[in-house]
Amino acid sequence: MKRGFGSDNHSGISPEIIEAISNANINHALAYGDDEYCKRTEQLFRTIFGEQARVYFVFNGTGANVLNIDAMCRSHEAVVCAETAHINVDECGAPQRIVGCRLLTVDTSDGKLTPDLVARRLHGFGFEHHSQPKAISITQSTELGTLYTIDEIRALADLAHAHNMFLHLDGARLANAAVALGCSFRSMTTDCGVDCLSFGGTKNGLLMGESVVLLNPKLDVDMRYRRKQMTQLCSKMRFVAAQFKAYLATDLWQRNAAHSNLMAQQLAKALQDIPQAEILYPVQANSVFVRLPREVWTDLQNDYFFYDWNEANNEVRWMCSFDTTEQDISDFVAALRRRLTQHGYSNS
Amino acid sequence: MKRGFGSDNHSGISPEIIEAISNANINHALAYGDDEYCKRTEQLFRTIFGEQARVYFVFNGTGANVLNIDAMCRSHEAVVCAETAHINVDECGAPQRIVGCRLLTVDTSDGKLTPDLVARRLHGFGFEHHSQPKAISITQSTELGTLYTIDEIRALADLAHAHNMFLHLDGARLANAAVALGCSFRSMTTDCGVDCLSFGGTKNGLLMGESVVLLNPKLDVDMRYRRKQMTQLCSKMRFVAAQFKAYLATDLWQRNAAHSNLMAQQLAKALQDIPQAEILYPVQANSVFVRLPREVWTDLQNDYFFYDWNEANNEVRWMCSFDTTEQDISDFVAALRRRLTQHGYSNS
Amino acid sequence: MKRGFGSDNHSGISPEIIEAISNANINHALAYGDDEYCKRTEQLFRTIFGEQARVYFVFNGTGANVLNIDAMCRSHEAVVCAETAHINVDECGAPQRIVGCRLLTVDTSDGKLTPDLVARRLHGFGFEHHSQPKAISITQSTELGTLYTIDEIRALADLAHAHNMFLHLDGARLANAAVALGCSFRSMTTDCGVDCLSFGGTKNGLLMGESVVLLNPKLDVDMRYRRKQMTQLCSKMRFVAAQFKAYLATDLWQRNAAHSNLMAQQLAKALQDIPQAEILYPVQANSVFVRLPREVWTDLQNDYFFYDWNEANNEVRWMCSFDTTEQDISDFVAALRRRLTQHGYSNS
Amino acid sequence: MKRGFGSDNHSGISPEIIEAISNANINHALAYGDDEYCKRTEQLFRTIFGEQARVYFVFNGTGANVLNIDAMCRSHEAVVCAETAHINVDECGAPQRIVGCRLLTVDTSDGKLTPDLVARRLHGFGFEHHSQPKAISITQSTELGTLYTIDEIRALADLAHAHNMFLHLDGARLANAAVALGCSFRSMTTDCGVDCLSFGGTKNGLLMGESVVLLNPKLDVDMRYRRKQMTQLCSKMRFVAAQFKAYLATDLWQRNAAHSNLMAQQLAKALQDIPQAEILYPVQANSVFVRLPREVWTDLQNDYFFYDWNEANNEVRWMCSFDTTEQDISDFVAALRRRLTQHGYSNS
Repeated sequence: MKRGFGSDNHSGISPEIIEAISNANINHALAYGDDEYCKRTEQLFRTIFGEQARVYFVFNGTGANVLNIDAMCRSHEAVVCAETAHINVDECGAPQRIVGCRLLTVDTSDGKLTPDLVARRLHGFGFEHHSQPKAISITQSTELGTLYTIDEIRALADLAHAHNMFLHLDGARLANAAVALGCSFRSMTTDCGVDCLSFGGTKNGLLMGESVVLLNPKLDVDMRYRRKQMTQLCSKMRFVAAQFKAYLATDLWQRNAAHSNLMAQQLAKALQDIPQAEILYPVQANSVFVRLPREVWTDLQNDYFFYDWNEANNEVRWMCSFDTTEQDISDFVAALRRRLTQHGYSNS
Repeated sequence: MKRGFGSDNHSGISPEIIEAISNANINHALAYGDDEYCKRTEQLFRTIFGEQARVYFVFNGTGANVLNIDAMCRSHEAVVCAETAHINVDECGAPQRIVGCRLLTVDTSDGKLTPDLVARRLHGFGFEHHSQPKAISITQSTELGTLYTIDEIRALADLAHAHNMFLHLDGARLANAAVALGCSFRSMTTDCGVDCLSFGGTKNGLLMGESVVLLNPKLDVDMRYRRKQMTQLCSKMRFVAAQFKAYLATDLWQRNAAHSNLMAQQLAKALQDIPQAEILYPVQANSVFVRLPREVWTDLQNDYFFYDWNEANNEVRWMCSFDTTEQDISDFVAALRRRLTQHGYSNS
Repeated sequence: MKRGFGSDNHSGISPEIIEAISNANINHALAYGDDEYCKRTEQLFRTIFGEQARVYFVFNGTGANVLNIDAMCRSHEAVVCAETAHINVDECGAPQRIVGCRLLTVDTSDGKLTPDLVARRLHGFGFEHHSQPKAISITQSTELGTLYTIDEIRALADLAHAHNMFLHLDGARLANAAVALGCSFRSMTTDCGVDCLSFGGTKNGLLMGESVVLLNPKLDVDMRYRRKQMTQLCSKMRFVAAQFKAYLATDLWQRNAAHSNLMAQQLAKALQDIPQAEILYPVQANSVFVRLPREVWTDLQNDYFFYDWNEANNEVRWMCSFDTTEQDISDFVAALRRRLTQHGYSNS
Repeated sequence: MKRGFGSDNHSGISPEIIEAISNANINHALAYGDDEYCKRTEQLFRTIFGEQARVYFVFNGTGANVLNIDAMCRSHEAVVCAETAHINVDECGAPQRIVGCRLLTVDTSDGKLTPDLVARRLHGFGFEHHSQPKAISITQSTELGTLYTIDEIRALADLAHAHNMFLHLDGARLANAAVALGCSFRSMTTDCGVDCLSFGGTKNGLLMGESVVLLNPKLDVDMRYRRKQMTQLCSKMRFVAAQFKAYLATDLWQRNAAHSNLMAQQLAKALQDIPQAEILYPVQANSVFVRLPREVWTDLQNDYFFYDWNEANNEVRWMCSFDTTEQDISDFVAALRRRLTQHGYSNS
């Protein structure tokens, strides 16, 4: 398949990660997380997120999100999230099926919740006909490539706690956010009052590795059983732990995220003088959302794979990855220009 | 951790598998199974199981089993299985939570269902107060290390079909069975009338790779959505497919399974002249179940990790793996003898 | 408790209904719906809705709605409905917990879906990350007291069927709609292409009696088991059937609904010259939604029970019932005027 | 339908109950349980079961059982019960679908659990692959018409509490047990350490009325939402409360239960000199289980409706009801004798 900008899941594995897997492939280790690799990597997470952090490795982001929701909510409770949140639109209803709860969605202009937007959903407490709001879920960086500031996260945590609710952060791309904001993982999460997070590595160079990180000890109840029951318990877990260790104990997470962010900036810059490719949201992490003439979009998909993000709005998503090259960008922009020209659009 | 006989999940990854992952780690590939690696490996499965076979890769055995059950049953239906079946005792209730159905269990002497045993559960058809029997599930090789013959599987398939039911086969260790019976995968499954199977690789040398294989086309309805919704959709799926390709396109599956079976035979042989270590079931695959004096068992666990299989029966399980060595066996048996001697048991 | 306008569930039982229960209270009858009362009443439903209609009696509206959704959708599918739909806001997440599916909600001005509003939700077909739209659900009369015309229902049915979807109608107050539109039940449902409906009696004079009516025979699969499994199977079902028979075989449903509709008209008329009580939606069935000054509303709740419908909008709901009297209305309006005067509002 | 012995659900409603419904049918009452009828009846339950008792009215026994299980268990936990328990065999898998938990069943000779039988299921605590035992559920009187003594119930409660588990009692026929044992409801439940019970009225003369009674205050968490979400919230709940009040504030429950118990004794006595009708369990409440020659059984079902209880064992169930008459018994026994004679069995 041609290299492109379809998803940060289309790139492969960082060589350091394969090496870490190989290095862990000696002798025997207890299965299901009771091994030394897991213990050491869990300690590394506590060093990063604070001593109270508890880590549960899982297979994928859906698993991490659903397990976090299950930690926060019973089925008669509800999670407030953006209409565009991955847990709302991209899990095929996994929270509904597995937790059985409701999601209370809010329309946003840029994928970000605000206290005002959330507050509209905070009613009906004590009324048995209504699902009870129990959690707020945000994504950092967001599904639209935008970022919450530290203060914005803290404000949402305060709002949640004032209503006896929890704040969940979907951090499938948390590394991109940390690099972009120039802050530590901890300052965006633990120190802001985030109660739990989905911390991902797969989109930033791991083979397969995601995690539930509980920052509020109240949430750490029976998690081992729930992870198992929702099919997310890995047998040879040492190989997930070994990946996370290589990722977090070195600067790998930073290098990879810094690179994909930089590539997104360069892609955005290269689009600046193409008036038909309108950039729709601030490019703050590793994605660029663009409105394109429909016929150009359709033709360009013959050259490159990418998702129709919002057909009603003629909106597409282009993602940069840890392995995106400057050549990838210039090839892609050249193809775009060719397609525009074919359709009679003049572009310098 | 000391090498031992705790589980075939305690061993690591076959070198050929790591190599296959490395070889697939070039350029970009579509995520979520739409890539060339998956397509080629799916074709390989069809070559092995028959052209009607449809493969859905998943993360682990729990996921494979639950997705198969979901393909066969609605929540008001039921699966007949052995009391000892993994889906009954070792999934922490995943089928109940995710599919919502009942399991109708049957006590067995050796982990194997028979038509007579199953027939006791086949009543209440049409009576709305009772969950409706819709599937039979067997494990090959069984959780007790025993084997179904081809004829025995066919008889259960015939019984299932005569009642408008399906036959599921949990093949987490199907390679061990195929080697032991000296038959092909197909002859034990497709050709016997098995409707769907959980086909595993992790216990026989893969990093992480299991699959749902549908042999009855009637079951192939909306499976992509269900796999996603139950959190079992892998993003960088090419790396699961690449593992299965290396495993199945060469004799790797056979070599690994033959070796672990052989080691189990040798372990059993070494136990023959230790009267306190009573072998409980025929050693037909890669596990040996033994009744031991409780105090010996407890002390031996200081030397080696292994599971208390059935405390009421003083029963333990020792598993051999693709990487078990003759040295492992002699060390282990020597430790056992030492512990027996310590407790005053004479053993030649 | 003081008589009032809190809900059509606050009124009691029509005397004819108690009489029907008494009359059915002779000798023995088979339980769980296999009795003659049920069979005769089911035939009555078929006379009313068409010979293909299949009826499943249930306890309450939640049960009817969830059973209908379960007939239409698997957990990975979704129901398009108005944000204000009872299934969305007033079931405490029952569809999510029991069916496990998503609801795709649409904001409306008056509680009514239109083909254009629904069409915005009809995308992502075939994309496994998205719940698949499989049903449209409307309420007649709506939760805001408005009505769909027959043509409007037919247009939604056509849209549903064009996308291989089903149309569900929540008819908790279908009698009020039929009377208001001057049409038969059938002309609003079967003849428009409605696939299934929740047909209620409790809000219009029954003690307790709701039903699932399937108009599309494709939906009639294993319904008996699902009704039982979701806790909605009544043992002495003859007494539900007897109520529905008394309700539908005479003009009771019509008399009761006509009366409550009339009372709503009279209440609306009495409010016309009170400028502080702004009527928010067309009064087409038996409810009146009013925007009131907050402090008046709060005080009036000391006199009468009624629901805060939408606090953000200062909106309250007043329901008329089959037993509402003209005296009830004049008492209530007088109390409202007193409260307005107390707060310094002049009202003629 | 001919009067018979098919079920205590085949009889109708006690006249006092219809009268109570009529008497409650005045003016308006708040819906969903916030009315004076409910409050007074809830107080009556506290008088009977102890001041800590909390009552949640529901529609049927399935609803009561599932709501109780939901109060005790999360989905990764399990309930130990008899194989013959109603929650296991007669709810079509409702606990599995709605709570998502496992039932750990035990074979019994007479429908009664004992501490020894339960203890076999109490293992695997802390092992994440196994559902965690969290509750014991017993039925009083049992599904086989037998009774637990007070001491037997207390022993099971002690066992449960020693393992940090709860004891649930399914009391669909608790009145029959209380009358038979000559004890109060409280002495069999609260005073024995029962944590929660399903308390039924429908089988003993109510139209429709069951309840969840929580005796352990720890269980009273968010019950209102869960009852609603699992479709068991009744709108005109005053009419359920009024039934229970008439049932419990007078000696109605006692009269009805005493009568059905007496009729069972008379039926058993009448069978004593018919050797082909072997009574299988002690007749302690209102049911008689009999082994009959299969061909007689089949023919007798042409005369009378009754359930094939256990075909493998040629076992049928005959239930007496509050309205069973001595004439019913003599007619039935005469029919049985006729059928025996037809088939060549001599019976005095």
